[in-house]
Amino acid sequence: MSNQSVNPRTGEKFGPIFISTSPQAIDELVSQSVAAFASWSMTSPAERARILEAMADALDAHTEALVDIADLETGLGRIRLTGEVARTTFQVRAFAKALKADEFVCVESDPAVEGAPPQGHPSFLRTVRGIGPVAVFGASNFPFAFSTLGGDSASALAAGCSVVIKAHPAHPQTAQLTFDIATESLTQAGAPLGLIGLAHGYECGSALVTDPRISAGAFTGSRAGGRALFDLAQSREYPIPFYGELGSVNPVVALESALGDPKAFAGAYLDSLLMGNGQFCTNPSVLFVPENPEFLNQLQEQIAQRDLAPFLSHATKSLHDANREELLGSVVASTYVGKPAVGDGFYTSPLAVVIQASDLGDSLESIGEECFGPTGVVIVYKDIREVVRILSGMEGALAGCLFAQSSDENAPRILNSLASMCGRVAFNAWPTGVAVTVGQHHGGPYPASTSSLHTSVGTHAIVRFLRPVSFQGVPRELYDSMTKENGR
Amino acid sequence: MSNQSVNPRTGEKFGPIFISTSPQAIDELVSQSVAAFASWSMTSPAERARILEAMADALDAHTEALVDIADLETGLGRIRLTGEVARTTFQVRAFAKALKADEFVCVESDPAVEGAPPQGHPSFLRTVRGIGPVAVFGASNFPFAFSTLGGDSASALAAGCSVVIKAHPAHPQTAQLTFDIATESLTQAGAPLGLIGLAHGYECGSALVTDPRISAGAFTGSRAGGRALFDLAQSREYPIPFYGELGSVNPVVALESALGDPKAFAGAYLDSLLMGNGQFCTNPSVLFVPENPEFLNQLQEQIAQRDLAPFLSHATKSLHDANREELLGSVVASTYVGKPAVGDGFYTSPLAVVIQASDLGDSLESIGEECFGPTGVVIVYKDIREVVRILSGMEGALAGCLFAQSSDENAPRILNSLASMCGRVAFNAWPTGVAVTVGQHHGGPYPASTSSLHTSVGTHAIVRFLRPVSFQGVPRELYDSMTKENGR
Repeated sequence: MSNQSVNPRTGEKFGPIFISTSPQAIDELVSQSVAAFASWSMTSPAERARILEAMADALDAHTEALVDIADLETGLGRIRLTGEVARTTFQVRAFAKALKADEFVCVESDPAVEGAPPQGHPSFLRTVRGIGPVAVFGASNFPFAFSTLGGDSASALAAGCSVVIKAHPAHPQTAQLTFDIATESLTQAGAPLGLIGLAHGYECGSALVTDPRISAGAFTGSRAGGRALFDLAQSREYPIPFYGELGSVNPVVALESALGDPKAFAGAYLDSLLMGNGQFCTNPSVLFVPENPEFLNQLQEQIAQRDLAPFLSHATKSLHDANREELLGSVVASTYVGKPAVGDGFYTSPLAVVIQASDLGDSLESIGEECFGPTGVVIVYKDIREVVRILSGMEGALAGCLFAQSSDENAPRILNSLASMCGRVAFNAWPTGVAVTVGQHHGGPYPASTSSLHTSVGTHAIVRFLRPVSFQGVPRELYDSMTKENGR
Repeated sequence: MSNQSVNPRTGEKFGPIFISTSPQAIDELVSQSVAAFASWSMTSPAERARILEAMADALDAHTEALVDIADLETGLGRIRLTGEVARTTFQVRAFAKALKADEFVCVESDPAVEGAPPQGHPSFLRTVRGIGPVAVFGASNFPFAFSTLGGDSASALAAGCSVVIKAHPAHPQTAQLTFDIATESLTQAGAPLGLIGLAHGYECGSALVTDPRISAGAFTGSRAGGRALFDLAQSREYPIPFYGELGSVNPVVALESALGDPKAFAGAYLDSLLMGNGQFCTNPSVLFVPENPEFLNQLQEQIAQRDLAPFLSHATKSLHDANREELLGSVVASTYVGKPAVGDGFYTSPLAVVIQASDLGDSLESIGEECFGPTGVVIVYKDIREVVRILSGMEGALAGCLFAQSSDENAPRILNSLASMCGRVAFNAWPTGVAVTVGQHHGGPYPASTSSLHTSVGTHAIVRFLRPVSFQGVPRELYDSMTKENGR
């Protein structure tokens, strides 16, 4: 099998043809990854930080070249992509900073307590070490921040793991260039050979997660693809953690107290909904609004004026269009349509699907299928209890939002409803825009994440790849000589 | 199906017949668990601590009655069982203490940072909440500490989860009595109805892990049973975490520098190997010793003098005997035999299986099957590199031990080999005896645990049942009014 870049603005193929990495080559990549893990995992956190910072510097220095090719392959635009490179290297440096501050990787000392058990006990040094070589799957919609050296790779590398990356077929050149820049900088900084590996082609996904030498997987993408890989990872003779972000229908609830300026609110909603052509896992998929004719008028008027942006690929557009058609066939709704799509590029006209809460009844499931693209569901409610009922029937989500005055008597109740199904709850903010910081939780109940305990964004993401080991009665000097013995 | 207690010392059945909990009754238990979770999960950590402490007090007050029935059902002896009740209530109080100190459950504040992303970001309150109702599976070998209200239930309750417990069929009366005492004390202390539930019978295991309202599972037991439940949990439409401890072949390495007193060392080894008839997941399954005729003589002499203890059940004895037979059929070994087994109770003669490391070659796998009982494998090595090679071919384990002088030049290397495959590495200590403390890690790579990131013993066990939720831009007062609104 082979793959070539496609310009989503025109539908034209361009650039080199990428032949799928052969099973033999995958085997060799994993062998190198195992060897690299043996030394990298014993490297001190400070040394790992130094090397990761060198890689971040190199990526920053090549921002323009990276953005050039990514814009051609994804159509996401230079401004967004330039920001995404900065976000990606910020992420890498955030992990480096955490390592230097001994966060997440410190040795916790639990001194001996005299006496008989259960009160008395020997001393413990609670430590962590990298779980092993990690398979990372690049996402279509973030060619940098959730791809080759995005958050999954950065957190795995920071944890002391080696990584083998599967390039996303929608941007193979971006993946290859990112990888080449990173590899050169890592080698120069003294990282072990094979610390990162890159594979192309659909087939290599299952080869990687089923390889007995791979110890974890990380994925951002479609529900079908992610679930198939999750299932492979769990059905191995030795199952491994598979951290998958499989899509999310994110609820946004507006209370009456937040709709003081319907025009501005409609504009802000469309900004979030149509950002990046709606191809965000944090897209405001379902907006709950109280009855407000002015808001709906504004929405109808403004959506018709918005410029179109292309889908990332033909496959993304096809899936979106099919899901939207299914949605429209299963609910009673008014629709507000955006500008028409023209030309051979991967465009679809934006659409707001306005449903009365009272009409939803049994069709709750139909709003549960993610329309990954410029489609928004707006649910008009008469009574806040309708919102609570509908939320309680929705699947787990990455983010939920509440727009209200903080004194609104219904605010606590809705916040709690959102928290029971989402990993992040934002107040008077749209779900798009995921801050890279220690307080972030980018996860949530399935299918938002295959592991609701973990985040893929923010420094807590590192714990996904850290396996605790407690040393009982081991003198600190002996522990230190062990890490030195095996370190660099 | 039904089940009745069996006295392992005599093989005789006694006491009431337990009819398997019906599917309808399971459904009702889970419904109550869901309702209890809704209020318990919003209870403040301090309130949960108070209620858990009341339960611990009640269990302590009934120690004698609990030990009476458990001794009849398990044959583990009154001394061990009295200690185990104390350990169980100590565990519950350890979680209560952590809750009162706001450990693991605190609200982490990440203040807003001015400026554009990625540096600038809104404020976050990073919080945790109970993952949901948890299915807990009692273990055969710890009728208290890893059963009804053992570490899994205690950590889940501390996390704000409700639990539905499957009683182990080897000690149904102990399970029922523990449950009844706990339920009465919880009710008196003001816990919600249905916070804990108890089910009997083989079939209810799969009913629980596949119930869509159950959010996690916790299990200690056999590899076959645990894996079957793990597979069910992962293949659900909405997969859930399943924390299974599926058995462990624990390596113990003695270096020459530790064998100064071969007689005492042989005695200490047998103490650990035969404790509780070897029915510990931390049993010293495989002992590596340098060539030392005096040690082997002592081992042969002393094992013949040890008193026998019964297996927990006929099933446990049968599995052990079959695995031991398979082991003996696949290795070249000398055997040192204990006293013969007599009578109708569930006894098997202890056995030390002594193998030359150089004879092991391709039969590494045969020492990989756990002989859960009074069977020890002793591997005599000539060169420390043989030990490293054999360790590298072994499966993940709960605990590995090194006996050596701390200045021994081979100590760091063996410690590191052990750490690469074990969750806990003990120095100059036997693996049996798992301290309940914050520094503990009782887990390890599969099959020691289905989740090598987590421990089932010690206060860190609580994180298995805590799902993070980040509140973005939510004022602290609003967050507090939300938790109050939904609290008790």
